[in-house]
Amino acid sequence: MHKEQHLKSSEFISDIVIGMSDGLTVPFALAAGLSAAVTSNTIVITAGVAEIIAGCIAMGLGGYLAGKTEQDHYESELRREYEEVEKVPEKEMEEVKEIFAAYGVDDAGQELIVQQLAKNKDHWVDFMMKFELGLEKPDVNRARNSAITIGLAYCVGGFLPLSAYFFTNHPHDGLAVSAVITTFCLFIFGYFKSKVTGQPALTGALKVTAIGLLAAGAAFLIARLIS
Amino acid sequence: MHKEQHLKSSEFISDIVIGMSDGLTVPFALAAGLSAAVTSNTIVITAGVAEIIAGCIAMGLGGYLAGKTEQDHYESELRREYEEVEKVPEKEMEEVKEIFAAYGVDDAGQELIVQQLAKNKDHWVDFMMKFELGLEKPDVNRARNSAITIGLAYCVGGFLPLSAYFFTNHPHDGLAVSAVITTFCLFIFGYFKSKVTGQPALTGALKVTAIGLLAAGAAFLIARLIS
Repeated sequence: MHKEQHLKSSEFISDIVIGMSDGLTVPFALAAGLSAAVTSNTIVITAGVAEIIAGCIAMGLGGYLAGKTEQDHYESELRREYEEVEKVPEKEMEEVKEIFAAYGVDDAGQELIVQQLAKNKDHWVDFMMKFELGLEKPDVNRARNSAITIGLAYCVGGFLPLSAYFFTNHPHDGLAVSAVITTFCLFIFGYFKSKVTGQPALTGALKVTAIGLLAAGAAFLIARLIS
Repeated sequence: MHKEQHLKSSEFISDIVIGMSDGLTVPFALAAGLSAAVTSNTIVITAGVAEIIAGCIAMGLGGYLAGKTEQDHYESELRREYEEVEKVPEKEMEEVKEIFAAYGVDDAGQELIVQQLAKNKDHWVDFMMKFELGLEKPDVNRARNSAITIGLAYCVGGFLPLSAYFFTNHPHDGLAVSAVITTFCLFIFGYFKSKVTGQPALTGALKVTAIGLLAAGAAFLIARLIS
């Protein structure tokens, strides 16, 4: 029960991290790049909003499809394991033995485990799913929740850097304010991300900030080169 | 050996899918949105290239960090399991028994497995890593390979829709050609993605195409609304 809860909350956090990492970085970098090339904040805002909408939908629905695929995959493997246990039980028993042989369990031990597992087909299939294939039963609401969380996180992440262009009059000023806001947000985000994933928080914060600024710097330079 | 190979190739494919899904969708949608708002292909191309560079770096380095984090996490859990096996072996033995009790193995069977596992600390820790924590030892080159694959896939995916704006003279024409190219590429990509992940290929292709067109349509409408 506790473990299950832990798993769900970590999926939620991982979805926020997925959405917000890209959301804070890509629209910021795009706006920075355009600031090197155009003189109107409206174009930067238009492109930025278009990017955020596109990214939000693409990543959100992408997360939905990924969740659905994971579930379909689990169910098709589950059916296959039930079939194999039914049709070729000797082969499946051999596979169980091999799993334990790899951990130094002797023949008698392997035989004993196999006989006990084979008594109940549900237990046996559950065991093969987890220990042979490494698959956990996915949460039925995972795909939907994942889509919403990733999409919203991307939106929130994207509007923070873009907001600077709303209350400035020239892309150069917008970029300066946006860089300050985004550096601050990337650092805070990197800090909490590292905390929840159990990484050194300060190093993690610096890494995340560096990636964001690097992406924006590269976009800025290349856009200046083109225009 | 075969399983290991299967795992690596599926990680490679999964990285291509991650990079290309977003690469084919977001720059296309951004260009579509801008085409509703500006009259110069140069701005669309500048914004598109800036987005592709930013996305490529953000996603590539993001993949790198994710891979590194996975590895650090594995190593810190490994150290903890070695410590626990050393300091509180009775507690770890209880945990092994609980794992097997859940699958209907009786007391005598649990005891036998525990005794055999405990004979070799490396085997025992490996067992706990995989069966208690569900962690597989990550490939040492995973982070670097993942970064390169995701970044390149994003670039390739992004330049396909953008190419239309290079050989047309007005964003409206660019958008029309880009939509044709991208619909075609999304369909092909969705088809192969579904094939390799074992999903129904035609349905999968249609889903991927629909997401891309939906994102682009939304970006187009909202950009038109703003400008």
